[in-house]
Amino acid sequence: MQYTPITSTILAAIEEAVGTANVFVDQESLQNYAHDETEDLRYFPEVVVKPKDTASISALLKLCNENHVPVTPRGGGTGLSGAALPVYGGVLLSMERFNSIIAIDTENLQATVEPGVITEVFMNAVAEKGLLYPVDPSSKGSCFIGGNVAHGSGGPRVVKYGTIREYILNLEVVLANGDVIWTGANTLKYASGYNLTQLMIGSEGTLGVVTKIVTKLIPASTQSVLMLGSFATNESACAAVSAIFRAGITPSALEFMERKGVEWVIQFDDIKFDLKADVNAFLMIEFDGDDLDTIFKDCEKVNLVLEEHGCTEVLFADTAQQKEDLWRMRRTMAESVKSNSVYKEEDTVVPRAALPQLINGIKEIGGRYGFESVCYGHAGDGNLHINIIKAGMSDEDWKYKLKDGIVEIFELTTALGGTISGEHGIGLVQKDYMPIKYSEIHLNLMRNIKKVFDPNGILNPGKITPDL
Amino acid sequence: MQYTPITSTILAAIEEAVGTANVFVDQESLQNYAHDETEDLRYFPEVVVKPKDTASISALLKLCNENHVPVTPRGGGTGLSGAALPVYGGVLLSMERFNSIIAIDTENLQATVEPGVITEVFMNAVAEKGLLYPVDPSSKGSCFIGGNVAHGSGGPRVVKYGTIREYILNLEVVLANGDVIWTGANTLKYASGYNLTQLMIGSEGTLGVVTKIVTKLIPASTQSVLMLGSFATNESACAAVSAIFRAGITPSALEFMERKGVEWVIQFDDIKFDLKADVNAFLMIEFDGDDLDTIFKDCEKVNLVLEEHGCTEVLFADTAQQKEDLWRMRRTMAESVKSNSVYKEEDTVVPRAALPQLINGIKEIGGRYGFESVCYGHAGDGNLHINIIKAGMSDEDWKYKLKDGIVEIFELTTALGGTISGEHGIGLVQKDYMPIKYSEIHLNLMRNIKKVFDPNGILNPGKITPDL
Repeated sequence: MQYTPITSTILAAIEEAVGTANVFVDQESLQNYAHDETEDLRYFPEVVVKPKDTASISALLKLCNENHVPVTPRGGGTGLSGAALPVYGGVLLSMERFNSIIAIDTENLQATVEPGVITEVFMNAVAEKGLLYPVDPSSKGSCFIGGNVAHGSGGPRVVKYGTIREYILNLEVVLANGDVIWTGANTLKYASGYNLTQLMIGSEGTLGVVTKIVTKLIPASTQSVLMLGSFATNESACAAVSAIFRAGITPSALEFMERKGVEWVIQFDDIKFDLKADVNAFLMIEFDGDDLDTIFKDCEKVNLVLEEHGCTEVLFADTAQQKEDLWRMRRTMAESVKSNSVYKEEDTVVPRAALPQLINGIKEIGGRYGFESVCYGHAGDGNLHINIIKAGMSDEDWKYKLKDGIVEIFELTTALGGTISGEHGIGLVQKDYMPIKYSEIHLNLMRNIKKVFDPNGILNPGKITPDL
Repeated sequence: MQYTPITSTILAAIEEAVGTANVFVDQESLQNYAHDETEDLRYFPEVVVKPKDTASISALLKLCNENHVPVTPRGGGTGLSGAALPVYGGVLLSMERFNSIIAIDTENLQATVEPGVITEVFMNAVAEKGLLYPVDPSSKGSCFIGGNVAHGSGGPRVVKYGTIREYILNLEVVLANGDVIWTGANTLKYASGYNLTQLMIGSEGTLGVVTKIVTKLIPASTQSVLMLGSFATNESACAAVSAIFRAGITPSALEFMERKGVEWVIQFDDIKFDLKADVNAFLMIEFDGDDLDTIFKDCEKVNLVLEEHGCTEVLFADTAQQKEDLWRMRRTMAESVKSNSVYKEEDTVVPRAALPQLINGIKEIGGRYGFESVCYGHAGDGNLHINIIKAGMSDEDWKYKLKDGIVEIFELTTALGGTISGEHGIGLVQKDYMPIKYSEIHLNLMRNIKKVFDPNGILNPGKITPDL
């Protein structure tokens, strides 16, 4: 694709389309929007735009489409795959001023919300009505619900409640040429032609810009219990995961943490935890519901399963504070690692019984290439985040050889029935690995769907599919 | 689209592609596959093909694509929107010999199954392992799981367990040119590019032919309670529906039945039921779980809500037989109506609190046009099936004026935030109503997606979108 640089004429037209007060070209703005949370990558936009309404985005896209100016939509900037990086410059379209919760419909248990609302803000607003919106990525305090839609986000409670795919009913979307559609209907069921809502979810801003979101809500549980099981090996903890489900138990969260992850959190965050010498892996298991007796029955069942799998100790978080501390430990793990080491993060996902093979394989591959890794994640879904740490690797090996190791990790993931990303998306940094899992036939279908929605390739170019 | 008639040369090539024993051109076969369960519509194929493996379908589609021969895939033939009708003749591709349950993976709670397996056969096989596959349309005894995928099927338990969209992890699909892909991965989460699995679900055989299906399974509940609430009016029964969810209760099924539906079942089916004079509507409410005490607590809560909404009587099904009888009453309703009257069936879906407005509106429209209607359906999802009965309407009005009445029903559905079909699909008979809900911009996106997958338009032509 050939793109047009933003001339003063185009800039003036952009200002006219979205309002001068919403257009920024100062160096600080360009710098602030040149990165997200993906490694230390930097790509500078030519202009940052922060419109407030659908009509402005429609006018903006129409203009950019006619002039072949790339537009990179951006949510909270917490992405881990570089999907919000304006790799071809052009317009950085920040959705931060789309921050209104339009309606919480307690009659239908639905909400209509703008994409720039912070996920946790939305969750809290819904909780005030006794309702639950359960899609809470670790970054919930700063990520936007629009970004969650763009990435098909998950989080710890997918294991019981499903991913964001199961909560998005309808989307208002501005297409590349400025046309505006609603993708579906505000209904719990939908059999009315190709499901454009589902196609838009996880498309990372490459098919259209979401400007309104209708979500399903569910009744909130009133009780929860959080337990932490300790294991001598990664393998035994991972093996316990699928056994829990086989025993007929569905926790509301089931998280795996490797010892090294807990060590990093203790070292770099203000979290106290008594880490015993012989413990190398943890499972955090949460149950929720309205009836404590029922929850305790599940706890008993899970206890038996843990014991059978060599669990050495089970702790129960007794108070709200203890629960919050444990969750904070899990949630800050990624940041702990990131702020203290050169790293790369992968987001592997496999059928859950394959977790022991996956984690053993990762360590074996790391051993051969000389990198260390800190693994943790949503084990109940078979979703393992891998923070690859430079450790003793030479700069040259890190630059040139590491990629081969990552290829091996994804080859293993694929061989186990899994895929490249469970919830972080493909974006910029994973797209070159897509051919490990997907044939050219498959990738060409994706490229051609892209052309249907965005024939000039202006929307978030350079993402998802490797270039032709 | 221009299609090529099947010459003797093409027929010979088809026989070579799929094996002579799998090709049928006798009159009886053509007749048997000329209809599904949609009204009394008849469209004759030129040839019926019943291949057994993916390679045969690949060869068949390649041949038909090169020769511009239409191919209409068919599941169990229980469809209600005419999606399996070969409206342009050509090849009728019956999937009935794809009837193998390839694997039930109790480690990962997944199954791999061919599309020609009868839904209930699959459910039973899964139940034998203590697991649940909860997507059970009323036609579960004869419909195929492949047809369910093609229509994004639901059924009574969507209200707790979700539609088939939430259970399909991965699909093997033969594309129009004979290429074969897997759409996704065997994982519970997926953020690896455009979700072709979700795009394929509900696409009614117009984008590819599904040849293998990987489903998610869940632990089966061991207990259930079924209750039947009686109401004096449709409106009060419908108003109770959203109130149940607002009270924080999630039943495993919540079905609405109009008095007239029950009358038809009593009259034409071998079902005994004491239908009281002042009762005009019913809600069937099911709870499932592992703990009867918890279930009974929900029953008590629901009882209060029903009382507040003017429920005159609540019956509990005490025995397995009583439960089965009640369910059979609900399940045979469509067939009862169909086998005893000229009818048309619509599959409206709205946000659930809009149900009272929907049912009142339907009756008001019917009053003006002179048709009667029998309404029932999955009220918990806002999904109301409407059987329109000719009653006193003249043949001419039935032929020419009824359509305007149906347009009004869909205009109402749309105005209430709903859509044309919740689970029966668009197929042939609903496609002309699509512009009521969807703009030309939207419909053109669908048409262009179709062209990406099937540039020659050979796959199930004449379905979903109104012709250009």
